[in-house]
Amino acid sequence: MINELIEVLHLGIKGKKADGVCIKLPDTSTLGIISTKNKFPAVPVIINKLKHPYSKVKYLFINSGNANACTGSIGMRNAKDYIRALSRKLGCVSENILIFSTGIIGEQLPIKRIINSINKCDFKFKSSLKNASKAIMTTDRYEKWVVKKFRISGVDIEIRGISKGAGMIEPNMATMLAFIFVDIKMTKSIVNKILYNCTAESFNKISVDGDMSTNDSVAFVATGLNSIDLTNKKNYQIVEQNIHSVFRQLAHMIVSDGEGATKVCKVSVTKAYSLTQANQACYSIANSNLFKTALFGEDPNWGRIIAKLGSLNKIRYNPNDVILKINGITVFMKGVPTNQSNSKKLISSMKNVSIDVEICLNSGSHNANMFTSDLSRKYVQINSKYST
Amino acid sequence: MINELIEVLHLGIKGKKADGVCIKLPDTSTLGIISTKNKFPAVPVIINKLKHPYSKVKYLFINSGNANACTGSIGMRNAKDYIRALSRKLGCVSENILIFSTGIIGEQLPIKRIINSINKCDFKFKSSLKNASKAIMTTDRYEKWVVKKFRISGVDIEIRGISKGAGMIEPNMATMLAFIFVDIKMTKSIVNKILYNCTAESFNKISVDGDMSTNDSVAFVATGLNSIDLTNKKNYQIVEQNIHSVFRQLAHMIVSDGEGATKVCKVSVTKAYSLTQANQACYSIANSNLFKTALFGEDPNWGRIIAKLGSLNKIRYNPNDVILKINGITVFMKGVPTNQSNSKKLISSMKNVSIDVEICLNSGSHNANMFTSDLSRKYVQINSKYST
Repeated sequence: MINELIEVLHLGIKGKKADGVCIKLPDTSTLGIISTKNKFPAVPVIINKLKHPYSKVKYLFINSGNANACTGSIGMRNAKDYIRALSRKLGCVSENILIFSTGIIGEQLPIKRIINSINKCDFKFKSSLKNASKAIMTTDRYEKWVVKKFRISGVDIEIRGISKGAGMIEPNMATMLAFIFVDIKMTKSIVNKILYNCTAESFNKISVDGDMSTNDSVAFVATGLNSIDLTNKKNYQIVEQNIHSVFRQLAHMIVSDGEGATKVCKVSVTKAYSLTQANQACYSIANSNLFKTALFGEDPNWGRIIAKLGSLNKIRYNPNDVILKINGITVFMKGVPTNQSNSKKLISSMKNVSIDVEICLNSGSHNANMFTSDLSRKYVQINSKYST
Repeated sequence: MINELIEVLHLGIKGKKADGVCIKLPDTSTLGIISTKNKFPAVPVIINKLKHPYSKVKYLFINSGNANACTGSIGMRNAKDYIRALSRKLGCVSENILIFSTGIIGEQLPIKRIINSINKCDFKFKSSLKNASKAIMTTDRYEKWVVKKFRISGVDIEIRGISKGAGMIEPNMATMLAFIFVDIKMTKSIVNKILYNCTAESFNKISVDGDMSTNDSVAFVATGLNSIDLTNKKNYQIVEQNIHSVFRQLAHMIVSDGEGATKVCKVSVTKAYSLTQANQACYSIANSNLFKTALFGEDPNWGRIIAKLGSLNKIRYNPNDVILKINGITVFMKGVPTNQSNSKKLISSMKNVSIDVEICLNSGSHNANMFTSDLSRKYVQINSKYST
């Protein structure tokens, strides 16, 4: 469906490259949005938050190349101006349009070029998911899009999604954006429930550099094209699981594309005293530079993981009960390294692109995991290069 | 004084290099110690914590090259064995000796070589502060020692200190250690007060990679050689200020020696709602990889500082009141970059070795600052290189 509802534009922000996407939502759609909690939200985030709860959204409009963040009242006026141009062109009111931006922070949009492009566009909505995902890229190395089909109650359902992001990077480039569509009719409360659950376990469980941008947003649309009885628990579970898997795939594409990343590591904390503590431990280890450089060096450095864990003062456990596994091999238990901690099998497993770290705290029943990338020389190169 | 009370040993841990130091404390000494809160403390940290409050400490014994951390009951037995050898040799009881280790984690000490070296040593205590600081180095690029003299109430006072540390690094190398001596008689409570105040504003205000090791310790000794009336407020202030400056110098040497560091940056947060919030904001910005790589790239990247600040959900302020200065130049205020944010003056100031970042939150009266190093390609190189 959504393929027929995508327009890709050349707004003139990124030279001759496509840098704009307009998505038309079917009239039967229900929309949910989660946006950044950053205290310096970009103009689009502010506008959407004011508008979304009270209006019927018909179009999502995205630009890349400029975040329209830290742009003050001029940035706000620019956004309102291009929304007005869009609404005239699309025959709707401003309230029907939500906007998303990604790119450089602190620079004003080339608003004349943008409005000219909008006025010249014929909005046939005949582009593809792949073209849309390409048009919203900033420092991404590749397009991120997923199509998943499944059958439920005799009906074929499609889930389609795009995302962008590779850390919060290159000079002031920012932002993770994701747009996911499912061909089912849903109430607002079900849309929000699925959006929150799936985001918590996907986009909020990845980390490239522990930074949250001014523009991060995830939009989830139930297009309403098929009716499935979601009051039936089993139906609901199947639908949520399928949607969750699309969220997860899009999130994994982002972490794999982390700047300079050569590896993706799953950090699991198991049997924690509480879920909060499991998440905190995951987050801290996944963001430790010493751990991330060791990953890049293909070094099964249990000492850095244990020292990081030990430094977290709010996590409850008995140090002697902690068991650490790297790629399934127990490397540390009862307070000391095992005789496998330096084994050939372990060392050669570190050459894998996917690395698995599991820390069992044996202090409760709560589990959490997170995906992270390694910290490479290239990360430093990408993030330190900047000509002002 | 302390020069005549230092013995440097070759324990055989670091090949033919000096790797042991024994410091004899004058009988009139009062000692204070702050150690790591890491939940996997090294054997020496455990032993000192059990021993120090209840015994008269006569000797401090330090080894480099091996942290004796994550070494279990064998590590504990080894430590007790070499303490026993030392006590026999020095004519005291085990309780009179505190120990400190730094180096690789998870490997057992070469205990026979160590005990042999202790038995062969003549303990003349005629070595120097410089030699001692060299013998406790691990990945440090240079020795860290400070001598400061000042005159008070007609008496010449000397403060002497050594430190080591360059991040928590190279394969499992760890630890910040510092030993500071002042030629004054002090009560236990004054020693502890000065130690806590000065550590809070020096060693606890530097960050290379945000990691806390299993072995970190700071020892402060008032040798008792001179009597100064410290109930006199002015005297106390002068003494504390001078000691503080030695702590600060030793801490700055560590951050300047941060692995791969090319710059040292002072991050100040001013007019914060509370001291805790000022410290949290400082810590988060000082440890942001995006900010640290920008430093390395000599890029006045205000956007990364503002985005990091905005991502901290516990800091109270109005985003429109935030003023950001880099090297004294206002680059961001009222929610937008200033016309100085890209000026030639600012850009050329980024070539300095010392960089100054000040974030004024305008939400209270509390100030904090922290010193950090940049994140360079060399940091990644040092920390990823490891041959198991």
